[in-house]
Amino acid sequence: MTIAVDFQPVGRNISVEAGVTVLEASRAAGVGLSAVCGGETGCGSCRVRLSSDAAVSPPNSMERDILSVEELAQGLRLACQTRIRGSLRVDIPPESLTAPQRTQVEGEELPFELDPPVTAHTVQLKEATQTDQRSDWERLSDALVTAGKVKPRGYPLGMVRQLPGILRENDWQVQMGLRGEEIVSVSAPDSPLLGLAIDIGTTKIAGYLVDLKSGQTLAMQGIMNPQIGHGEDIMARIAFVMKQPAGDRQLQKAVVDALNQLALDLCRQASMGNGNHADAGGVTPLQIAEVVVVGNTAMHHLFLGLPVRQLGMAPYIAAASAAMDVKANEIGLSVSDGAVVHLLPLIAGFVGGDHVSMLLATDISSDTGNCIYLDIGTNTEVTLTTGGRTLSCSTASGPAFEGAHIKDGMRAAEGAIERVRIVNNRIVVQTINDEKPVGICGSGILDAIAQFKLAGVMNPRGAFEAGHPLVREGERGLEVVLVAGVETKHGRDIVLTRKDVSEIQLAKGAIRAGIELLLLEAGLSADRLEQVIIAGAFGSFIDVNSAIAIGMFPLLPRCCFRQVGNAAGIGAKMALLSLSKRGEAQEIARKNEYLELSNHGEFTNEFTRAMRF
Amino acid sequence: MTIAVDFQPVGRNISVEAGVTVLEASRAAGVGLSAVCGGETGCGSCRVRLSSDAAVSPPNSMERDILSVEELAQGLRLACQTRIRGSLRVDIPPESLTAPQRTQVEGEELPFELDPPVTAHTVQLKEATQTDQRSDWERLSDALVTAGKVKPRGYPLGMVRQLPGILRENDWQVQMGLRGEEIVSVSAPDSPLLGLAIDIGTTKIAGYLVDLKSGQTLAMQGIMNPQIGHGEDIMARIAFVMKQPAGDRQLQKAVVDALNQLALDLCRQASMGNGNHADAGGVTPLQIAEVVVVGNTAMHHLFLGLPVRQLGMAPYIAAASAAMDVKANEIGLSVSDGAVVHLLPLIAGFVGGDHVSMLLATDISSDTGNCIYLDIGTNTEVTLTTGGRTLSCSTASGPAFEGAHIKDGMRAAEGAIERVRIVNNRIVVQTINDEKPVGICGSGILDAIAQFKLAGVMNPRGAFEAGHPLVREGERGLEVVLVAGVETKHGRDIVLTRKDVSEIQLAKGAIRAGIELLLLEAGLSADRLEQVIIAGAFGSFIDVNSAIAIGMFPLLPRCCFRQVGNAAGIGAKMALLSLSKRGEAQEIARKNEYLELSNHGEFTNEFTRAMRF
Repeated sequence: MTIAVDFQPVGRNISVEAGVTVLEASRAAGVGLSAVCGGETGCGSCRVRLSSDAAVSPPNSMERDILSVEELAQGLRLACQTRIRGSLRVDIPPESLTAPQRTQVEGEELPFELDPPVTAHTVQLKEATQTDQRSDWERLSDALVTAGKVKPRGYPLGMVRQLPGILRENDWQVQMGLRGEEIVSVSAPDSPLLGLAIDIGTTKIAGYLVDLKSGQTLAMQGIMNPQIGHGEDIMARIAFVMKQPAGDRQLQKAVVDALNQLALDLCRQASMGNGNHADAGGVTPLQIAEVVVVGNTAMHHLFLGLPVRQLGMAPYIAAASAAMDVKANEIGLSVSDGAVVHLLPLIAGFVGGDHVSMLLATDISSDTGNCIYLDIGTNTEVTLTTGGRTLSCSTASGPAFEGAHIKDGMRAAEGAIERVRIVNNRIVVQTINDEKPVGICGSGILDAIAQFKLAGVMNPRGAFEAGHPLVREGERGLEVVLVAGVETKHGRDIVLTRKDVSEIQLAKGAIRAGIELLLLEAGLSADRLEQVIIAGAFGSFIDVNSAIAIGMFPLLPRCCFRQVGNAAGIGAKMALLSLSKRGEAQEIARKNEYLELSNHGEFTNEFTRAMRF
Repeated sequence: MTIAVDFQPVGRNISVEAGVTVLEASRAAGVGLSAVCGGETGCGSCRVRLSSDAAVSPPNSMERDILSVEELAQGLRLACQTRIRGSLRVDIPPESLTAPQRTQVEGEELPFELDPPVTAHTVQLKEATQTDQRSDWERLSDALVTAGKVKPRGYPLGMVRQLPGILRENDWQVQMGLRGEEIVSVSAPDSPLLGLAIDIGTTKIAGYLVDLKSGQTLAMQGIMNPQIGHGEDIMARIAFVMKQPAGDRQLQKAVVDALNQLALDLCRQASMGNGNHADAGGVTPLQIAEVVVVGNTAMHHLFLGLPVRQLGMAPYIAAASAAMDVKANEIGLSVSDGAVVHLLPLIAGFVGGDHVSMLLATDISSDTGNCIYLDIGTNTEVTLTTGGRTLSCSTASGPAFEGAHIKDGMRAAEGAIERVRIVNNRIVVQTINDEKPVGICGSGILDAIAQFKLAGVMNPRGAFEAGHPLVREGERGLEVVLVAGVETKHGRDIVLTRKDVSEIQLAKGAIRAGIELLLLEAGLSADRLEQVIIAGAFGSFIDVNSAIAIGMFPLLPRCCFRQVGNAAGIGAKMALLSLSKRGEAQEIARKNEYLELSNHGEFTNEFTRAMRF
C-alpha cells in the first residue's frame, strides 16, 4: 500500500511505503529538508509541522527530549524520527529548508481581498465604413463611454499602435486592461492579463508572475542580482557609479536585463505548468500589464536610473521617496507597452520599499502589540511597534552573514556549511545539498558561535579558551577546526578564527543595538516584546535559538519568534493584486518615525554592550 | 549718402546708394526676388509692397500699365522700375520670392495672445539635513504647495533624475517648466525655456524654435523629409511599410533623426543670432520643453509609429485622430526629458493636422464669409466656410506640380524654370537662383500652360495648335520648346509635351472639382466666394493669374486671393505658444464636415468639366 505525502510550501507530492520516516520521504521527493545529524544524535534541525497526528508514529523519547510540550502540541515533530502510517501534509518551516530554496521566493501569505489596479474589459466595436470614418482609438473611446465606463485618459502610443491590427483580426472585438481611466493593454478577447511582482535585493532578486484576473500565482523564481559584479554591497555600488562614467546606466541596464530574462523564464514556467508550451498558447511577458517593484533605497534608485551619489554621504537623501507610478517602457522593461511599474514608498536613505513591503506582508497595520520586525542583511532594518507608534532604524550589520570577511566564509551555495552542532565534544556539520564542505555560510557561522558559547569554547568577549580540546593554535592565533581537510572538497581544513568571531560580534552587536535603541526610544524593555518577526533569506534560515544564544536577539520564548520567509516579495505581490494594500503601504511609510542612528547619543554604549556574547 | 533698406520677411538689411532700383538692391542683398524679364518687358513677376511712397520714385507708365489702381493703392510696385530715394522696408509677397526660400518656413502671421502650455517658475528649497531627510522630489513638491502652486502630478523620471544634481550645484534653487500640474523640465535658475514647432510635409519639413517665455521666434529652417528615399508620395510610403519588415520603424527613425538634427541646427542658429556660440552660453535642444507637430495623416502616423496599412485602403481609417499629447522621449526626440509633443487633431484619412493648422493660422474661426482654403500638394485639401458651416474634402491632385510625370519636370530646386512668359511670341523664362535651366518646376509649368492658352498655343481641351510658330513636331507628337539646348545646363532642349499638359489637366481638374463639389454641397456658386486662401510652398509661389487662366481656380478678382506661405507651420507655432489656440484647433476639427469624394455621385461630372482649360 502506498501513501500520498504532500510537502509544503515547496509543493511536491510523493507516494511512499508505510513505515518510512518523513526525512526519508523528503529525500525521495527531492525536498531540501535540513538534517544535520541525519537522525543519529538528535540535533533537532529537521523540525517539521504535520497535518495529522493519526497518520504517523507517536513522538518517541528523542522527540520528547528535544521538542517542548508546546511545540509538540503545535504538531511539530522531528522528521528523522517520525514514521509515516497514512496520507498527510508536511509543512517545512523555513529554518528546516536547505538550498536550492536559498534564493528564496516563498514566504508566509496572509489572506487579502483581490482588488487589482488593472482589470480586463472586452468591447465589441462597430466596423468602420465610408460613412463612419471615426479613427480606431476614438471608436474605442466612444464605445467605452457608451458602455458606461469612463472616457480613457491620454493616448498611450503603444496601445494606439496595436489597436488597428487587433480590431481587424478579431472582428472588431478587443480586450483592454483598464487602469483607472487609462488603457494599459489591448489584446485579443480572452487573452491572459498578467502581473509581475519583483523584490530587488542587493544580492538576490525574487520574481512572481500572477494572473491579475484570478489573483493566482502562476510562477515564482529567485535569481542573483547581476549588479554584484560591480560591487558586493550598496556602498561599493554607489562608489562604482561615482567613479565610472555612465556607471549608473550600466547598473540600471544590468538589473533591467535580468528582470526581462526573469519575466521570460517565469512565463515559460507558467506555460509549462498549464501544460502549454510558450509557443503554443502559453503566456508571454507582453501580457504583463502591471509591475510592482520593491527594493532598498539604493536598489530602487539604481533600477530607476536615479542618482545615488547623495545616498553615499550624510545626510543620505533619496532623490524621491513616495510611492511612484512610472511607465515600464521608460525603464526598458519588455512587458505590455502601456504597463505601469508601481514602486512602494521608501522610508529613508537606508530603509527602503522592501522593508515597507515586509511590514505590509506581516500585517503591521493591524494592532500587533509590542513587536519587532527585522530584515537582516548587510544593512539590517529594524522596526518597533508599540502603543500605536512605529519606529524604524537601519543598522550597519555588515556582510559577515553573507560569508564575507570570514576566513572560510561563503554565500549560501552548494557545499556551504549551513548547520553546526557540537555533540559529545565533536563538531557535526550539514552542508547545502549535502555536498562535501567548501566553506561556511551565515547560518552556519551563527550556529557555530552559539555552540562555541554553549560548549565553553569561548568566553563572553569572544576569546577562545586555549585549553579547550576543540581549540588549536593556528597561523594567526587560536582557531577551531570545523571540518578537517580530509573531508572537505578542496582538501583544506575549514576553520573559524578569532577574527571571524569578531566580525560576527560586530554584526550581531549592530543588530541588537538597533533593537535596543528603538526600545529605549519607546521607553520599553525587551521583556515586554510580544513578537519578533524575522524576514529575508538569511533570517529565515538561521536557527533562532543560536541567535538568542549569542545575544543577537533578546532572550524571549522561542514561540515569540516568527520566521516569515521572503516577506518583501510577498508584500510586493499583495501590492500587485490590491489597491487597498498599496494605500496601506503608503500609510505604513507615512506613519513611520525614522531614527537616524549615526548621530544617536546612545549608539556607542548600546553597541558596546550588544557585542558581548 | 547711403540709404538703409530692410527686406522682409527674409529679414535682411542693406545700405544702398540713392537711385538704385529695388530689384538691384535685392540682388545686392542676396534676396531671392523673382524677376523673369529682368525689367526688360514688364512681365510683372517682381511685385513688392513698400512701406513708404515718399522714399521711392513715383509709379512710371509700365507700372501703371501692369498694376491695378487697387494694387498701387495697397503699396504694390514693380521692383525693377522703382528707384530708392530714402530708407524703407520692402515686403516681398510669397509669389515674388524665389528659392532658397522654396523650403518654405515663412508665412503670414496674425497676432495672438501668448498663453504657452509650459511656464517657468523658480523656487528656493531648504537644504536637506540630518533632521530634515525629505527626499529631493518631495522637498520640491512641498515647496510648490507652500508657494501656492499645485502639487505636481506623477513622477517624471527624467526630472527626478536631474533634480539632485541641479539642487546641489545651485544652492538648492531650481527653475521648473510647469505644464499644468506636471513638471516637464528642471534646470538652473534663469535657463532658457524653449519650444519647437514642426510641420512635417510629405516632401519638406519646416521647424521653428521659439522662446516660451517671450514668445519670440529664435530661428526657423526648412529641410527635406528624409523618408523621400522610401517613396515620393504617401501611397508609396504606405506600400513600403506594408512590404518591408520593420519598414514603419525605419521611416519613423528617419524622420525622428532628421528632427533631432533640425533641433540642433535651430539651436545653433539661435545661439549665433544672440552672439553666443552654442558651447558658450547658447541654447541646446535639451532646453526644449514643449513640441508641437502637425502633418498630414500619413506623416502623423509614421512620426508616431502608428500603423498605416489601414490608411492605404478604403475606408481610409486613422488609428487615432484627436489632439494628442505624447512624451517626446517615447518617440525618440532628444529634447528635455519631460517634454510633451502635442499633435494637432486630424479631420480624416486624407485631411490631416497640417490642414487644421493652416485653418488655425488663417483665422478660420472668425467669421470669414464664403471662403475657400487650399493646401495644394500631391493631395490637395480644400475647405469651404459658408454661413457658419465648414466643409472639407481631399482631392488627389497628383505629383505633377512637384515636377513628377512631366517630361522635363523637376522639384523647385536650383536651375528649375519657375516663371514663364510669352512676350512678342518669344518664350522668356526665369530659373531658381538664375542658374542655367535644368528643368521645369510646378509654378513654371502652370505659367507655361496659362501662357500657351493666352497666346493660342493650345485649345481648351489642351491640344497644341499645329500651326502655331511655337509648336513643333517632337518624337512623340506635338511639343513646345521652352528653352533651346544651347542655353540649358545639360545642352538638351527643355520642352512641354501634350502628355505633360494632360498631367496638369488632371491635377488642376482634381483641385477645381474639389472646390466645385464643396460649393455644390453648400448650395453656393463660385462667384459668391469672397476669398480664396492658398497655403503651402507650391501655392505660395504660383502666379495666381496663371492658375485662374487655366481654370484651376474660379474666375474671381485677383484681390480675392491670398497666398499665405507656410500657414501650417505658422499654425503649429501658434499652437506651441497658446493653449487657447489649441482649443481653437480642436474646435476647427470638431466642427468640420468631411466630404468623401471617392464615392460622391457628382465627382466624375465635375472632374470632367474642370479638366477644360
